[in-house]
Amino acid sequence: MELRVRDVGEQGLLKRVQAFCPSTIVGDDAAVLPTEPGKSLVVTSDVLVDGVHFSDRTTPPESVGWRAAAANLSDLAAMGASPLGITIGLGLPGELAVDWVDRLYQGMTDCLKHYGTAIVGGDICRSPVITVSITAFGQVDPNCVIRRSTAQPGDAILVTGYHGSSRAGLELLLNPDAEDSPNSSQLSEGDRAALIRAHQYPNPRLDVRPDFPCSGMDSSDGLADAVLQICRSSGVGARLDREQIPIHPALRKWVSAEQAMQWALYGGEDFELVLCLPKASAQALVEQLGEGSAIVGTITSSPEVRVVDSTGRYSDQILDLEKGFQHFEGE
Amino acid sequence: MELRVRDVGEQGLLKRVQAFCPSTIVGDDAAVLPTEPGKSLVVTSDVLVDGVHFSDRTTPPESVGWRAAAANLSDLAAMGASPLGITIGLGLPGELAVDWVDRLYQGMTDCLKHYGTAIVGGDICRSPVITVSITAFGQVDPNCVIRRSTAQPGDAILVTGYHGSSRAGLELLLNPDAEDSPNSSQLSEGDRAALIRAHQYPNPRLDVRPDFPCSGMDSSDGLADAVLQICRSSGVGARLDREQIPIHPALRKWVSAEQAMQWALYGGEDFELVLCLPKASAQALVEQLGEGSAIVGTITSSPEVRVVDSTGRYSDQILDLEKGFQHFEGE
Repeated sequence: MELRVRDVGEQGLLKRVQAFCPSTIVGDDAAVLPTEPGKSLVVTSDVLVDGVHFSDRTTPPESVGWRAAAANLSDLAAMGASPLGITIGLGLPGELAVDWVDRLYQGMTDCLKHYGTAIVGGDICRSPVITVSITAFGQVDPNCVIRRSTAQPGDAILVTGYHGSSRAGLELLLNPDAEDSPNSSQLSEGDRAALIRAHQYPNPRLDVRPDFPCSGMDSSDGLADAVLQICRSSGVGARLDREQIPIHPALRKWVSAEQAMQWALYGGEDFELVLCLPKASAQALVEQLGEGSAIVGTITSSPEVRVVDSTGRYSDQILDLEKGFQHFEGE
Repeated sequence: MELRVRDVGEQGLLKRVQAFCPSTIVGDDAAVLPTEPGKSLVVTSDVLVDGVHFSDRTTPPESVGWRAAAANLSDLAAMGASPLGITIGLGLPGELAVDWVDRLYQGMTDCLKHYGTAIVGGDICRSPVITVSITAFGQVDPNCVIRRSTAQPGDAILVTGYHGSSRAGLELLLNPDAEDSPNSSQLSEGDRAALIRAHQYPNPRLDVRPDFPCSGMDSSDGLADAVLQICRSSGVGARLDREQIPIHPALRKWVSAEQAMQWALYGGEDFELVLCLPKASAQALVEQLGEGSAIVGTITSSPEVRVVDSTGRYSDQILDLEKGFQHFEGE
């Protein structure tokens, strides 16, 4: 029987086509290309499709634009790079309102301006479905590249902010009545807005600039996915302490600890950085970053990623990649 | 009434969203970003959609890949840049054969290898329609950038190769019996293959490296479009001699002179360069490039682009942009 795209899945297909790419360049959040002595070009791409990655139900066009720009800037941040610009490729149905396109660009440029960069080019063509393709490129000192593959046993695992908030915000948008369910505490207007904002207008962590070599990536596909990817790339394992994983106070109030932990580990799109570095450096960075950032565990030499509970309430859990995003699975 | 995408068209929409981009960067075949003293980054993007830009009827997946890569390398060539790499964003239906994707990548990498570059990254996601987004980036000495906006009255207009062949190849693929029509001379197998190859496997002109400043762009949207765009950007006009426009001998044999001229001017996708430079330099470059390259006219200070016939058989024709590609019009 002929093998089809849905049989292989998004990740499987990406791995398959990597055979066509230079192996030294692909496989991280972004490609790193040496261009000049002391400077490398960093490039990353995303494709977003209406109905798969966004929908009018949860994301106004400004937010689609902001999120698309933020996701790609986050990939640059995850490599330690500073942005140079982005290009936008749009596929648009003829019946789409031009106002939607204007608002999309407004959202993108609002985000980009905030981080001191701009749209520098692109293409627009007809398509039966709205498709937004973004390529972001930046620059990095080759000695300061943050790679997935260099985590060492003994490294502290640091996250730069809260996890689970974006997924919680999505829930509030999808099920406006969810917050009134019998098992939920009522959210204040401010808490509600904070969680929705985390989903619609996430902040890529270009402000995080560790001044010592570290390993890591961003948590765009969830904290669990990030730790697993780093461990797989580095040939190490990890031990995460669930009590240390930073959850926004609003989310803690709203849903059960178990639900919040699921969203933190698997929800994705928080666009924080997950960094692995010596413990003393990690402690200094947490102090510098402040609220939300935390040391959540340690890199180990064992082959597995284990979530432990220092309070003893939960038994250990072994994470695996299969619970991550697989966009083709839903078909 | 609400303004819709089809009311504005592809070009109209591109112009509209350029308001969101730094005006010094956009508006040419590719963006030029100063990164280092003596080096600029050049970036260009394309979006190709199944049924709009390619179809199984005329293009096997290897050709879709080759053409997509070639079109973007051509934009780099049109800026005088050397390629650093490309990224690929794919939107794919779940039911698509994985073999199609493999063959697409094979076509892209065949083309890229031929020009000494590679795929360095990308993204794959689910979509109801096959969508291929490509971003190519390259490097150029800022003093050697080929821009659309610097053509001078008196410059010779040089084309680096035949025009109309790609459109002719498309015709042969769309109407396999067209070559046997009563008004056509029979094509030899070799002629037929040459025209189809021009459509399916065009060659971006990265080999053309003028060693003197010149203005220009590529002829991806047709020779008429290229000359009109250059004239508009430079605030000049042009005079083209139809007898000088290079048409492949197979095409001359096959269809009427009028049909061949239409395809040369408006067919598009020949991916040659259209360069404006002093006449002596142009003559030297034509000699260097050989077969197919030619001086086809002169930049003038009048506001129009006039096609004249030095043999006196045809009356003068004024070109206008409305005859160029407008992909949304067909909806």
